Amino acid sequence: MTDYFKKYDIYRAKVDKILSDVTFGRKPDSLYKPVDYILSWKGKRIRPALLIFSCEAMGGNPDLSLNAAAAIEILHNFTLVHDDIMDNADTRRGRETIHKKWNTDTAILAGDEMIGLAYSLLIKTESKNISKIFESFNNGIIEVCEGQAFDKEYEKSADVKLDEYLMMIRKKTSRLLEVCAVIGGYIADTDTQNIDVLKSYAENLGTAFQINDDLLDLTADEIDFGKKIGGDIRERKKTYLVLRANELVSEKQDLNFLKNIFDVKDKTEINDSDINKVKEIYIKYGVIEDTKKQISKFTEEAKNYINKLTGISDRESLVWFSEMLLNRNY
Amino acid sequence: MTDYFKKYDIYRAKVDKILSDVTFGRKPDSLYKPVDYILSWKGKRIRPALLIFSCEAMGGNPDLSLNAAAAIEILHNFTLVHDDIMDNADTRRGRETIHKKWNTDTAILAGDEMIGLAYSLLIKTESKNISKIFESFNNGIIEVCEGQAFDKEYEKSADVKLDEYLMMIRKKTSRLLEVCAVIGGYIADTDTQNIDVLKSYAENLGTAFQINDDLLDLTADEIDFGKKIGGDIRERKKTYLVLRANELVSEKQDLNFLKNIFDVKDKTEINDSDINKVKEIYIKYGVIEDTKKQISKFTEEAKNYINKLTGISDRESLVWFSEMLLNRNY
Repeated sequence: MTDYFKKYDIYRAKVDKILSDVTFGRKPDSLYKPVDYILSWKGKRIRPALLIFSCEAMGGNPDLSLNAAAAIEILHNFTLVHDDIMDNADTRRGRETIHKKWNTDTAILAGDEMIGLAYSLLIKTESKNISKIFESFNNGIIEVCEGQAFDKEYEKSADVKLDEYLMMIRKKTSRLLEVCAVIGGYIADTDTQNIDVLKSYAENLGTAFQINDDLLDLTADEIDFGKKIGGDIRERKKTYLVLRANELVSEKQDLNFLKNIFDVKDKTEINDSDINKVKEIYIKYGVIEDTKKQISKFTEEAKNYINKLTGISDRESLVWFSEMLLNRNY
Repeated sequence: MTDYFKKYDIYRAKVDKILSDVTFGRKPDSLYKPVDYILSWKGKRIRPALLIFSCEAMGGNPDLSLNAAAAIEILHNFTLVHDDIMDNADTRRGRETIHKKWNTDTAILAGDEMIGLAYSLLIKTESKNISKIFESFNNGIIEVCEGQAFDKEYEKSADVKLDEYLMMIRKKTSRLLEVCAVIGGYIADTDTQNIDVLKSYAENLGTAFQINDDLLDLTADEIDFGKKIGGDIRERKKTYLVLRANELVSEKQDLNFLKNIFDVKDKTEINDSDINKVKEIYIKYGVIEDTKKQISKFTEEAKNYINKLTGISDRESLVWFSEMLLNRNY
């Protein structure tokens, strides 16, 4: 049996190398130090991994997909840098954010620069489908920005529906995963039908991933998670859990409690006891169980799409990747 | 004789049409209204014009260069939106800036989105040199960000040399004009040698253009200019004039006056009388005359490069464009 963890580690190291080289020798430091600061954080590199595994699974040479994989990681990190400004986030992954460590201007410019750097790597990809690769990558940028804009709109709105939320996370989270799977497929030069299946696979995977992220905010281990539990509640963020709770909670007293806690106009601090009470309500009405079911549903759907891929050389790798991604508890 | 003004107007109208269509039907409004607000401002569209004229001069079909021309204009406007945040600018071209009319988050996201929209138009360009076009466009983004980073560094520094300033404006201003001329050349499928000449032409043109901009800050008509005279001095900005004055001013009293005015740590407001005094010193030491000479020097250099282009079908159009660009007094 293939040791996929080992493969993942090897690919990750190769991508990390590209990411550390991309700023090498470039000036001025006021621009490239913050870029290097964020790119040198050795994260899980989920998106590059999905791109490389998709390429290899469809019979492509994984080494030909490394630059595109690094490009996607830079693009993802650009969104984090700018989102952190908008979210007023002081830390990410337990480290200071760029706008906090430096300042907002630096974070804006570093993020902009990263889009340029991402494209400079993508350009290096050798593929006869390079135009389609560019188009997919570019639509990714456009839709991620749209997703972020919807997210900011919903933050200010008292009335967000679950299906609006699912549309938003599709743009904000799934879309970039779709781009990874699709570009991997294009580099492997697979057919149009497989490209569509890869897209649907990653869409479901991404949705499961984001809902899992929403759940982990309340159920993860604080140390592994790298941030305080209940952070989404503290920020009064709309997540799958709270929107589903709005549908499931029946008693007026509990509904009112949630309504008060998630009042977008309320600026007072939410304390630990409030968070525990929210969690109790979620458990009482089966919100957490329901959320787990949804994650399973989207995961199964993703796996079904893996089975629909034709002429695939390593179906097992994509199954492994999906399970690895969704079984994390941090 | 060709009526180049008429041609310019026709091209500008075509580019404006593409720019007004690019956001059509897109959601959410919180993202696309600000994008549309900035793109719908009917500016001079200098960069698109340079791209289209370069393409046509080198024997290409101007209609094939319209999408790339619009892409460059969006890219340019993205830099304005983000620079205005960093510069705390409340108005541009006499209108409120996006971060002022909406807020900083909106301006960050609108700018990001515009990069995506720019690429989505560039992708539509039909050319066998599409990879080189992408590379040039992309290096443009990277260097413009570097130029902005140097600019912000220099703002905080008390000791900036004229050659550092020239390097900075080459990145921040000339680079995008070079990209225009070069992409125009690529779409016309001209040879490598001509591409290099087009690049040098636009580099000199861009430098002349920026120094002229520095000069106009002090000599333009306020109404035509759309902003208050002496704005650069009020912001203690390093411009060609002040850095050249540092070299030319000999009397200690005058040098000290300038040093005090341009003290980067001083946050007090600079009044009209200070600005008049600065202008007097500039005139006394021939700074304004010297600046005009520099503009002429770079303009002549640019025109010399036009003469070096081989197999050109309309040399006169580029001469006309250069003169039109640099003879503006607003």
